[in-house]
Amino acid sequence: MNKDIVVQKYGGSSVANIERIKAVAQRIVSYKTNRQDVVVVVSAMADTTDELEQLAFGVAQNPSEREMDMLMSTGEQISCALLAMAVKELGFDAISFTGAQVGIKTDKSYTKAKIVKIDARRIRKALSANQIVIVAGFQGVTHDDDITTLGRGGSDLTAVALAKALTAKVCEIYTDVEGIYTTDPRIDKNARKIPLIMFDEMLEMASLGAQVMQPRSIEVAKKFNITLHVRSSYSKEEGTMIVKENEKMEGVVVRGIACNKSEAKITICGVPDKPGVAAKIFTEISKVGVSVDTIVQNVSHTRQTDISFTVPKASLNKALQTTQAVAKKIGAGEVMYDKNIARVSIVGSGMRSYPGVAAKMFQTLAENKINIEMITTSEISISCVINQSLSDKAVQTLHKKFNLQKV
Amino acid sequence: MNKDIVVQKYGGSSVANIERIKAVAQRIVSYKTNRQDVVVVVSAMADTTDELEQLAFGVAQNPSEREMDMLMSTGEQISCALLAMAVKELGFDAISFTGAQVGIKTDKSYTKAKIVKIDARRIRKALSANQIVIVAGFQGVTHDDDITTLGRGGSDLTAVALAKALTAKVCEIYTDVEGIYTTDPRIDKNARKIPLIMFDEMLEMASLGAQVMQPRSIEVAKKFNITLHVRSSYSKEEGTMIVKENEKMEGVVVRGIACNKSEAKITICGVPDKPGVAAKIFTEISKVGVSVDTIVQNVSHTRQTDISFTVPKASLNKALQTTQAVAKKIGAGEVMYDKNIARVSIVGSGMRSYPGVAAKMFQTLAENKINIEMITTSEISISCVINQSLSDKAVQTLHKKFNLQKV
Repeated sequence: MNKDIVVQKYGGSSVANIERIKAVAQRIVSYKTNRQDVVVVVSAMADTTDELEQLAFGVAQNPSEREMDMLMSTGEQISCALLAMAVKELGFDAISFTGAQVGIKTDKSYTKAKIVKIDARRIRKALSANQIVIVAGFQGVTHDDDITTLGRGGSDLTAVALAKALTAKVCEIYTDVEGIYTTDPRIDKNARKIPLIMFDEMLEMASLGAQVMQPRSIEVAKKFNITLHVRSSYSKEEGTMIVKENEKMEGVVVRGIACNKSEAKITICGVPDKPGVAAKIFTEISKVGVSVDTIVQNVSHTRQTDISFTVPKASLNKALQTTQAVAKKIGAGEVMYDKNIARVSIVGSGMRSYPGVAAKMFQTLAENKINIEMITTSEISISCVINQSLSDKAVQTLHKKFNLQKV
Repeated sequence: MNKDIVVQKYGGSSVANIERIKAVAQRIVSYKTNRQDVVVVVSAMADTTDELEQLAFGVAQNPSEREMDMLMSTGEQISCALLAMAVKELGFDAISFTGAQVGIKTDKSYTKAKIVKIDARRIRKALSANQIVIVAGFQGVTHDDDITTLGRGGSDLTAVALAKALTAKVCEIYTDVEGIYTTDPRIDKNARKIPLIMFDEMLEMASLGAQVMQPRSIEVAKKFNITLHVRSSYSKEEGTMIVKENEKMEGVVVRGIACNKSEAKITICGVPDKPGVAAKIFTEISKVGVSVDTIVQNVSHTRQTDISFTVPKASLNKALQTTQAVAKKIGAGEVMYDKNIARVSIVGSGMRSYPGVAAKMFQTLAENKINIEMITTSEISISCVINQSLSDKAVQTLHKKFNLQKV
């Protein structure tokens, strides 16, 4: 008999202490039946990662990345062993594995490795012995048996990749929120849980500031069409299903409002309008390790133009220095910056077939006297950079205007 | 050019915190030269093991042994990664490895696995790239890639086994004492560091209560004739060399005095003196997992005899229950016990060729009004069980009588 397989991923806060580990164990065994196998991916206990990092930066100013992975991977090894013990304590058979033990092979980019292959034989063997399988998330192993970690959101990635390798029915991402919301409930108390969202919409929501899942895992899930179920580890409520396009979804124009306050804006004025200048600017900035997000350059009517872009606030100083140097080199004018910005975005795959969505957004902001400093659009989103002090108001009025509070 | 290899093992107190890890790193690089490679074996940071055990017993009353090994092995993985970072910080190339990564293959006896094979190719490769190799002690991996631990003193065992596999010149065991002493300096302030001791003597010293090294590692070192150097991680002083028989050693009769206060004595009176009775008793006791140390049975003049033996104090209750049950079954008489005992031993390979050593020991005890309750002897040791309250006095007077305070 071919049993269904469910892959469940539990984050660090779900296994933060002994009591929570026991609660997760209870939940896990409730999913294990004669017709369903359970494969669990677990993150490091909350705080463990910080503690290990503190030790590393205590012994070395700039710890080797290979050794960092050797060190950090112990966090997940600890939590998966403990969770296996807790499940066994409930009278179910369980077995824990490191990334290396379940054949999660990666490339050699330590601290942000990419999975290149999964050999699921060991897991299948354990499942066919009716064991609940607990896998350490976030980690893999190179061809040379060196331990690697997968970077931010790595445990989600482990779960999605295992779901693919095992052709699981569904991949459940357990977290400390009930699912994906139409906007951040801390900003707008009318925010509502989204029952169904498309991968692309979720990608925009995630990259635009919704903190639940990392874009990388969603991209992989999209690529292999793995249905994700983001839900709370504290309740049995259904959360948000993240799926391919789906007929039930028709008619919804805007799925949600995202807001990102973590970036700062840099503008180079009077940039000579000739080929290769933008390339020069952003090559220099990428060289110092700063990742640029939104970039806006408008048409120029003179032989000069202005280029604006956003960078993480933490990287502002580094980015500014480079930008000023490069501006001088290319004969541009003043470099300005603004830390007090926010990017508010409306996201929804429906908007491509509904005209007037952008106009409605801009109109709504105008009615509320919110000035738009930059505009960018994608197939399924429209983003406006505005003054940060007005961003909560912008989110609330847009949420209302696009009727997101209604079911 | 074939370089010498030195294997160094650092215990948990030597790497207890960031400062000590840095100090150990300094020491390690001082041994790395163009003509000498360094392979380091490291234990878990002091306290880590306790913390992990607390977590395990928090989630399960009786944690799975496989999962315990999965869990506990992270302690050494953490310390070896940190130590490698610290060494690299000093400008030397270093690389850390788990037991699995350096091919320490063991059997499947989780929590007390035996090394069956070491494939040192990975270490040799790293050494030939001029790297300082840092290996997580205490752990190995089964044929199926399951993580195992080697039990008490496991890191010493890793060091000795690697020294063998790499045909190292010497295996240095770093600890928080200066070496092996003629007796416990806390008992007798005249205790003196022994510069040179034989494996067999050290075995007696270790099994008789000197806590520096576990007997198992010494046995392995003896088997493969690996010279051990037990020394302090806080000084550059030479410690104690543990070697095969050696001409420099002649003339020393008694090498040291050991004292063990951790055991309790059980006596079965009126045991029927017929074949198979002793076997029956100790089979039952071993079945409940209690390890018996000294056993004494004297000749009997009637058809009955008394059998006395010692067990760890922690196992006394369990051992007593079993002994009482078995005594009833075999028709023996009363079972008595005494927690207030100590075993004091004189150790020295020279004593086999010097008559009168035993007599001198008993005489010394008698002169000090110390009653001897049990006597056992081996080729190179004589042990007396006495009242624990008199054991310090016994150690001090024997230490003096056998002139151990002199160099």
